[in-house]
Amino acid sequence: MTDAHEALAAPGDDGITLLVLDADPPPRLGSLTGRARILHGDDSTIARQLPVADVLLVWDFLSDAVRRAWPGEGARPRWVHTASAGVDHLMCPELAASDTVVTNARGIFETPIAEYVAGLVIAWAKDFAGTNELQRQRRWRHRETRRVAGTRAVVVGSGPIGRAIARTLEALGVRVAVTGRTARPGVHGPQDLLALVARADWVVCAAPLTDATRGMFDARTFDAMSPAAYFINVGRGQLVVEEDLLAALAKRWIAGAALDVFAHEPLPPESPLWDVPGLTVSPHMSGDVIGWRDELGSQFLELFGIWASGKPLPNVVDKNVGYVPSHDLTQD
Amino acid sequence: MTDAHEALAAPGDDGITLLVLDADPPPRLGSLTGRARILHGDDSTIARQLPVADVLLVWDFLSDAVRRAWPGEGARPRWVHTASAGVDHLMCPELAASDTVVTNARGIFETPIAEYVAGLVIAWAKDFAGTNELQRQRRWRHRETRRVAGTRAVVVGSGPIGRAIARTLEALGVRVAVTGRTARPGVHGPQDLLALVARADWVVCAAPLTDATRGMFDARTFDAMSPAAYFINVGRGQLVVEEDLLAALAKRWIAGAALDVFAHEPLPPESPLWDVPGLTVSPHMSGDVIGWRDELGSQFLELFGIWASGKPLPNVVDKNVGYVPSHDLTQD
Repeated sequence: MTDAHEALAAPGDDGITLLVLDADPPPRLGSLTGRARILHGDDSTIARQLPVADVLLVWDFLSDAVRRAWPGEGARPRWVHTASAGVDHLMCPELAASDTVVTNARGIFETPIAEYVAGLVIAWAKDFAGTNELQRQRRWRHRETRRVAGTRAVVVGSGPIGRAIARTLEALGVRVAVTGRTARPGVHGPQDLLALVARADWVVCAAPLTDATRGMFDARTFDAMSPAAYFINVGRGQLVVEEDLLAALAKRWIAGAALDVFAHEPLPPESPLWDVPGLTVSPHMSGDVIGWRDELGSQFLELFGIWASGKPLPNVVDKNVGYVPSHDLTQD
Repeated sequence: MTDAHEALAAPGDDGITLLVLDADPPPRLGSLTGRARILHGDDSTIARQLPVADVLLVWDFLSDAVRRAWPGEGARPRWVHTASAGVDHLMCPELAASDTVVTNARGIFETPIAEYVAGLVIAWAKDFAGTNELQRQRRWRHRETRRVAGTRAVVVGSGPIGRAIARTLEALGVRVAVTGRTARPGVHGPQDLLALVARADWVVCAAPLTDATRGMFDARTFDAMSPAAYFINVGRGQLVVEEDLLAALAKRWIAGAALDVFAHEPLPPESPLWDVPGLTVSPHMSGDVIGWRDELGSQFLELFGIWASGKPLPNVVDKNVGYVPSHDLTQD
């Protein structure tokens, strides 16, 4: 009898059934043996598994299987955890209206993404691309480049990732404005966005994808930006109207852009986005450092322990706005 | 009569003669009209101009004309200012032994160079080069990259530039050790270098070029480094034994390197350094941000005012060690 079979066959001491939605199995779940019955699900099985699950771990954060299966019949898990910062792939009106608690992977991606954004900013400021090209041509051509300190950034998104980006850029001497869903101390409301964007050298999107933010970076936003400014998206692809970004780059409304996320992922080889002058394309990896899957696995185990002991969970997502609200964020 | 002719013909009110060694004329010197007689010199004229100059401004910091002309006959300037951080291009035993005060451009290059180094570190950690190459191939290939926070750096050089690099890396969460000519609080002595280098992810050279530092990065240093570590030189080219670095890269003793300075500048098109796998070559530009020449010009004017009023100059170089000693650095 294999361990996996045993885990399937033997209910946990406390009768908890954990349903794991995964493409690749998550690490470290073995330590739950004896504490939970673990079911593995996929697109084709999740609809019939949801009624028997107490807990759902959305490990495959690219799948929208939860959103499609959730409105079905029967009981629903009491707790859903997603191994991602965003919850857009799983939220649906029925889940939002339910008693089910949703938690996310706050704490894992903030620093890596902030570092990634800082690297893009410096690489543009110092014209690393130009240096690489001149090196290929064996040409010694001294240029004057930009001082990062003293430049201005707008970070759109006032969650943990947006605030980590702001802190890291501020550490480099960048003057940072953060915008969020609602104005509050240190955070501008959406009504300030265009005015802030107009003065920014770097516009960074780290917003959650919600009905209020979908497509918010459109021709109007790019038109408001300085022709010397750069745009970065590390949020979700659908925050950006991609054709408007391409037009803005083609018309030189902005100096350049870097997209780590796309409306359709993975980006197919035939996508026009791959070879747009001034556009850097990366495969949704800005937050994924070596060991990230272990970190996500450990985080889930920690939350599982808290949940199983009946204590209140951290990282609880406000299902109506689609992210962990700031007043619950005491430590970033 | 042109302004330039007038400046040459009319001694300043206080009879100061300023000799400017320049390839391109420095900006902003016009404001000295009436306060100093300005002579422009070059390799062929400086030997006969030195005896009549009260002040020498070494604007062309690549020239070694001063070092060659200084041991000559006659009076010498009382003050020499170089529009550079390093003074290796002008120092000679006779200048070191003289009463002449030497000042440098401390304060201009620190932040730009620190930003440049931070950008290289992040670009390596996040494999920006791999992303660019995969984009060219239109291939979506997710990778796990490195978290910068928690990595270790050794910064060789405890002057203002080295310390600015250390501060900037520390702001990114890097654990930084600084080495200098002598051990003191917060600075390791040269005897610790190999042990520190062995544990470092990033080894950054920002040392002055002196007889004690020439060639200090040789096979022994590179052999001590981790095969996963990277080397950056923003100091002077002759601090590195270039053939040893090439051998270390070829043997994969180290993961990569970036050189902004070279034993012979500009690097000729036929140099083997241009296309070494893992080596980034840039044309001595890491400190040169837009407006740097104006900043250097303004700085000289400020120092000129201080000197002309008889007050003690800041940025005075210890001619025996070849840089501004740390105990004179109150504000970085």
